[in-house]
Amino acid sequence: MDGKETQAPARGRGRQARQAERARKGGGMGRPYIQRNIPTYDVMSEENLIRIEQAADRILAEVGIEFRDDPVALDHWKRAGATVDGLLVKFEPGMLREILKTAPAEFTQHARNPANSVRIGGRNVVFSPAYGSPFVMDLDHGRRFGTIEDFRNFIRLAQSSPNFHHSGGTICEPTDVAVNKRHLDMVHAHITLSDRPFMGSVTAEDRAEDSIEMARIVFGRDFVEENCVILGNVNVNSPLVWDGTMTLALRAYARANQAAVIVPFILGGAMGPVTSAGAIAQSLAETMAGCALTQLERPGAPVIFGNFLSSMSLRSGSPTFGTPEPAIGSQVIGQLCRRLNLPLRCSGNFTTSKLPDAQAMTEGTMSMLAAIHCGANFILHSAGFLDGLLSMSYEKFMLDADLCGALHSYLDGIRVDDNQLAVDAFHEVGPGNHFFGCAHTMANYETAFWDSDLADNDPFEKWEANGSHDAAYRANRLWKQRLAEFEPPPLETGIRDALDDFVARRKSEVQDMWY
Amino acid sequence: MDGKETQAPARGRGRQARQAERARKGGGMGRPYIQRNIPTYDVMSEENLIRIEQAADRILAEVGIEFRDDPVALDHWKRAGATVDGLLVKFEPGMLREILKTAPAEFTQHARNPANSVRIGGRNVVFSPAYGSPFVMDLDHGRRFGTIEDFRNFIRLAQSSPNFHHSGGTICEPTDVAVNKRHLDMVHAHITLSDRPFMGSVTAEDRAEDSIEMARIVFGRDFVEENCVILGNVNVNSPLVWDGTMTLALRAYARANQAAVIVPFILGGAMGPVTSAGAIAQSLAETMAGCALTQLERPGAPVIFGNFLSSMSLRSGSPTFGTPEPAIGSQVIGQLCRRLNLPLRCSGNFTTSKLPDAQAMTEGTMSMLAAIHCGANFILHSAGFLDGLLSMSYEKFMLDADLCGALHSYLDGIRVDDNQLAVDAFHEVGPGNHFFGCAHTMANYETAFWDSDLADNDPFEKWEANGSHDAAYRANRLWKQRLAEFEPPPLETGIRDALDDFVARRKSEVQDMWY
Repeated sequence: MDGKETQAPARGRGRQARQAERARKGGGMGRPYIQRNIPTYDVMSEENLIRIEQAADRILAEVGIEFRDDPVALDHWKRAGATVDGLLVKFEPGMLREILKTAPAEFTQHARNPANSVRIGGRNVVFSPAYGSPFVMDLDHGRRFGTIEDFRNFIRLAQSSPNFHHSGGTICEPTDVAVNKRHLDMVHAHITLSDRPFMGSVTAEDRAEDSIEMARIVFGRDFVEENCVILGNVNVNSPLVWDGTMTLALRAYARANQAAVIVPFILGGAMGPVTSAGAIAQSLAETMAGCALTQLERPGAPVIFGNFLSSMSLRSGSPTFGTPEPAIGSQVIGQLCRRLNLPLRCSGNFTTSKLPDAQAMTEGTMSMLAAIHCGANFILHSAGFLDGLLSMSYEKFMLDADLCGALHSYLDGIRVDDNQLAVDAFHEVGPGNHFFGCAHTMANYETAFWDSDLADNDPFEKWEANGSHDAAYRANRLWKQRLAEFEPPPLETGIRDALDDFVARRKSEVQDMWY
Repeated sequence: MDGKETQAPARGRGRQARQAERARKGGGMGRPYIQRNIPTYDVMSEENLIRIEQAADRILAEVGIEFRDDPVALDHWKRAGATVDGLLVKFEPGMLREILKTAPAEFTQHARNPANSVRIGGRNVVFSPAYGSPFVMDLDHGRRFGTIEDFRNFIRLAQSSPNFHHSGGTICEPTDVAVNKRHLDMVHAHITLSDRPFMGSVTAEDRAEDSIEMARIVFGRDFVEENCVILGNVNVNSPLVWDGTMTLALRAYARANQAAVIVPFILGGAMGPVTSAGAIAQSLAETMAGCALTQLERPGAPVIFGNFLSSMSLRSGSPTFGTPEPAIGSQVIGQLCRRLNLPLRCSGNFTTSKLPDAQAMTEGTMSMLAAIHCGANFILHSAGFLDGLLSMSYEKFMLDADLCGALHSYLDGIRVDDNQLAVDAFHEVGPGNHFFGCAHTMANYETAFWDSDLADNDPFEKWEANGSHDAAYRANRLWKQRLAEFEPPPLETGIRDALDDFVARRKSEVQDMWY
């Protein structure tokens, strides 16, 4: 190549250059996070929101929530003025809302590459891969238990896509590593293979502490004391139970000034009522209690208000995902969360399909759009799930990543200015002529439309000549290409060595546990 | 079966009975149309809407619209006060809005079965199959030209699904029937194989007249003079051209007091500017002109404000569908239409995929949800398209029909009352217990969640044991089953004979035309 190459206009330099160009202009991907330019979709009237809040208050005051195996949590509640009877805690209406006033409405989670730090809350949207599957799948080998190499592969695939903003957490369970040591390898992989923000472990208090300690190696102890650098995703044991494992982890994160994500998992008819309004009231009650506990541990600690509603099949009693009721329910929870002025984690990309097929993307798209519409600030599970929540699929991950790309443009909305309105172009072109080569098209087409990595838009005959492949096949080819081309982002040798040492030392201190 | 069978509770009688039960309760399918219980999703500020309206007014006043091959249309415009220079018509700002005031905000389209009549406009939503593909596809035989038997099959499949409210129009082109006679066979098929509302032909004035005449045979001449019983879908030849073929059809429908659907087809960068705001302004200008022409032909005639925005691929220049920009654009057009107080046709289920795969349903779901969110009252193209707009797929039709089912529940939103809030159920169940068998679940589970015909929600092992099929395979099985079981709705013999006679006579009067 000669020197002229670097001077060529963007459209002469192919796909990558166009993407870079769009990112520079702020009209495409490659941004550290999205600032939404369309409103949230508020589906419920204020009158009905208040009725749901009142039902949540009644559940909290009359039925209460059990806090198991964590006496410190019970002490917190006693001091805060709740009624504690054994493990059961009851809350006067308004009490939790008052406690929650110390939680920040938005905060920054820092990445080791400062260009990738994300702002969580307000109008900001962060996409993070799915979390927690024991299995992985691909078209070549079907379903199998996840390994640490699968885990690393998904980090590589996320890092190499401009459509994510976060490296995630337990993307899949690395089942070839001992249960009590895998958090070390997982956090190590996030830090070394990605330079985006990430999540730590929550499955035991010491694993949460280890995760935070590894973040301190990267960011420095003083910085971590003042800034959020790691998230921990903690689940309510719905209905109305907080297990000690979770509250100990929740408190560990809060104590370190790091953000817990508080998430009930309510399968309507099983862990909650079969009616949506009741499940939403329950979700609000459970999440407010968890969020408030972070503030009792450390007032002002960042915390994210989460949500995970689902439905079930009438025929089999199986859980269903990507169905209409949880989609609408998520949008209501978004409204309730904004009334609390907390950052929101909502919904994500869910499906019960066992293949990256039409069902997977019907359900996944409905579910993911609900997360977009409800105003979620942190969208966990934005890519990869098949098989309920049980499998991470390599192909589905790529398909979902592509959808995440589309959603950047969706959230940008429509700009209205003289250039966008194009009245001059109508004067130029006139009735009955086409806009292909007109000056306005030439000046704007590079940034006009989102460009999919995986959609085949060719005419039928060309598609057929190219092998008649489906989207799953193309996704299979793309993840293999991305892994083959992957290069980890640079990391200071001293930090890398210190992380290696920490992991080695901690692994040597305990016996392997396998369940 | 003995007499007890009819007394069994709904859950003892299987799927069909459950559906009937849900329909009776108003919580499921089987309704003649949907009354939305969630608001529209208004993504644009009023300030920006006004700027788009002003741009449309400038296009109409400064650039104008050509009306070709229809001197009567030009006379209408002259009398209405527009500036007519040859074929070019220019409109003072506000003139078209004033003319449009005589158009009804909503109207009833009658079905030959009165239980299936639909209300178009306001909060009502009507799903209709896709329209206009020359090709059909199925998994067994791939792509081929559509025939009248394919056409009839799609009517049968729509009629046998509780998820549609309308029989549609040119569901696929019956290419084995002469171009100038196929409208007779199509309208005949709609009337004899379906008892829902339908659309007539628009491809020539006499074909529009024939379609309306056949409706008169069914409904009676006087009734048709006073009531809408047939729709005609007419397209602008964007940019800024109305062809005589279309305005003659448009005027034929309006003259007979029947509803024209006025639809520009704007592929950004080709038939309109590559920027969304400009394409929307153009769409508004073109549609207002078409709608206004119906009112000049017959003030008070029903008319539907349509929209069809699309994007293109940067790589190939090919049209793209189901992308984010038209999805957002449709929502803006919905807002603009409501400011005109007209019934809205918007968007539908579009994709460029050549298979009923992940791409098809990612794009289709995004596109269809935009139609739902924008407040569309009449959703043409709600099922069947693959391959851009070129093919009707039997499998995609079934997958889309299933999505239409889900959207019934989506549009129902969330009810909030004491039963739905379920506070008593929390008292009954308490912390840590499940809701499976509780009284509230038993009383509510039949109507709680939408139940898909095609999703596989089984555990992986059961799905694998059943053959590891994908959704397209299940859709293939289902359309064959539905066709095998199909029985046409009853039709009075006299009407059937009169229709047969009309079709035979009209066919005998002219030579076949094949292009």
